[in-house]
Amino acid sequence: MDLNSLLSQIELELQKQISRLDTPRTKPFHEMLTYHMGWTGEGAGPDATGKRIRPLLVLLCTSSSGADWQSALPAAASIELMHNFSLVHDDIQDNSPTRRGRDTAWVKWGAPMAINVGDALFVISNQALIDLKENYPAELVIRAAEILNNTCLDLTRGQFLDMSYEKRTDLAVDDYWPMIAGKTAALLSACCHIGSILGGVDDSKQEAYRSFGHYLGLAFQVQDDILGIWGDEMVTGKSAASDLIEGKKSLPVLAGLEKKGKFAERWVKGPIQPGEVEEVKRFLSSEGGLIAAQEASKQMTDLALMSLREADPQGVAGEALFVLAGRLLQRDQ
Amino acid sequence: MDLNSLLSQIELELQKQISRLDTPRTKPFHEMLTYHMGWTGEGAGPDATGKRIRPLLVLLCTSSSGADWQSALPAAASIELMHNFSLVHDDIQDNSPTRRGRDTAWVKWGAPMAINVGDALFVISNQALIDLKENYPAELVIRAAEILNNTCLDLTRGQFLDMSYEKRTDLAVDDYWPMIAGKTAALLSACCHIGSILGGVDDSKQEAYRSFGHYLGLAFQVQDDILGIWGDEMVTGKSAASDLIEGKKSLPVLAGLEKKGKFAERWVKGPIQPGEVEEVKRFLSSEGGLIAAQEASKQMTDLALMSLREADPQGVAGEALFVLAGRLLQRDQ
Repeated sequence: MDLNSLLSQIELELQKQISRLDTPRTKPFHEMLTYHMGWTGEGAGPDATGKRIRPLLVLLCTSSSGADWQSALPAAASIELMHNFSLVHDDIQDNSPTRRGRDTAWVKWGAPMAINVGDALFVISNQALIDLKENYPAELVIRAAEILNNTCLDLTRGQFLDMSYEKRTDLAVDDYWPMIAGKTAALLSACCHIGSILGGVDDSKQEAYRSFGHYLGLAFQVQDDILGIWGDEMVTGKSAASDLIEGKKSLPVLAGLEKKGKFAERWVKGPIQPGEVEEVKRFLSSEGGLIAAQEASKQMTDLALMSLREADPQGVAGEALFVLAGRLLQRDQ
Repeated sequence: MDLNSLLSQIELELQKQISRLDTPRTKPFHEMLTYHMGWTGEGAGPDATGKRIRPLLVLLCTSSSGADWQSALPAAASIELMHNFSLVHDDIQDNSPTRRGRDTAWVKWGAPMAINVGDALFVISNQALIDLKENYPAELVIRAAEILNNTCLDLTRGQFLDMSYEKRTDLAVDDYWPMIAGKTAALLSACCHIGSILGGVDDSKQEAYRSFGHYLGLAFQVQDDILGIWGDEMVTGKSAASDLIEGKKSLPVLAGLEKKGKFAERWVKGPIQPGEVEEVKRFLSSEGGLIAAQEASKQMTDLALMSLREADPQGVAGEALFVLAGRLLQRDQ
């Protein structure tokens, strides 16, 4: 098993799915989707596509369950499309001008068109999943569709919580997990769950795979939160201070707010300015925000790896899953 | 068969589906959906829910195919939810402040929240359809999901065309039908198609039902276009002049533009002002815009009724379908 071969098959399947819009009257619409996916337009290329971690997880979970990964390709594409739907709408909702160094869809074509681009990615995600019917029994396709759509509803729940937190200053760590469970963990959990179902393992193994994805997502998000404040700008490629300036309700911040110390005192007064970032970071570190997040990250990482061992993934794909998990969980970028 | 009983069952099924979001942390999110559906908040009630024509069509098509309509309720709810997803996003895209006399979702909660409300309606629509698995074989559920998602992709295509026409002055009647086919006819066609599939009729009858919905949608839209310009304000409840002032690319307008007469000359100069509406209407009538639309409406109505006769709907539900079609196609409001 060669990861590059998986990745190129994923890309082909994604292109095939999106080509549904490649008709004479909707060519410019099709191009909006291929731009967002990183294939066309300014800055197109590997840096623009993202890492395709989610579809990779699907295929590795299917393969490490002892089944043929090629048959699962429509499911892998489906989840990546769902992820990209949420990115396009997220960028509008957050007013984010760039993603992966390129203009976001709403900047290029306006919010009304970008809403429609996201909607189309959502529909095609469902269509890709239905394509599984060529390779699997109808009952199994329905089970996968059920998981995918439950996951999507979790995404909208997480998005709601995230937006509803924007103006609140009374948040605590307990408010963090439901948001992150929806926004990040749900989709990674669905990757592993659906992948293992298509792999044909029994219910308890499916649960272990699902659980692996869930904790992987939580651990990944907490690390992202830490890097968003203390990460080296040069390494992460994004302004490490931006999360504080943007007022992101990350785990370190919520842990810091709970302490009601100097950090909380400053935070509730309003947006952090670039000039005070270093001082606010020091408050947050000394008041336990960093340690709380590091401990949570370690805990979630341990749970993820424990679940993966329980899933007992087989063969080269199994080894690749441990390597991928390790890379995601010990990243410095 | 009592239409009121169908309507109250539809409402109950819709409420059941949307209650998926009725959890402690997402109560305000749930309320955004129940507000949009017309059940809660200021102005809630029958006037705010809309007529539920689409779910009614689903149930009447199932029942007139000779099967039990109760089993098809999740499909009826699914299509109504899909319709409402498109309304919520439409209102953001068109910057519409009111719908059915009430503030739109984006006016009440801002565009970011409203995008998420639409997304959630979309997801729940898919979830409702999957609920059919309790009542029908898995293969049939997948067939219905396929039709629903193909329809949704048509919706995004129609939406794209509509938005891409906004700044164009070179449009003709040929540009009208693909837009309307996606924006209006696709969903009505899916109602009748899915309804008849759940009713268990053969392929040629399914095709007749599908075709009925398609032409019903086209005829309905053309009539809406006529009323939007020449309709009596008091009867339609909306400003009859608003379509001209809003620059809507309706069939009479596109037919008028093709003539390259006084109407076209004025139209390409920019937005019509309220004071000139009467004059512009006269240009459009005398240059054939009204007649062209009336002829198209008659043609589509004939095709719809011919298809319905071909479908040969049975029993009380069959009679109700003819009555409903007649009401939709000969409306003066």
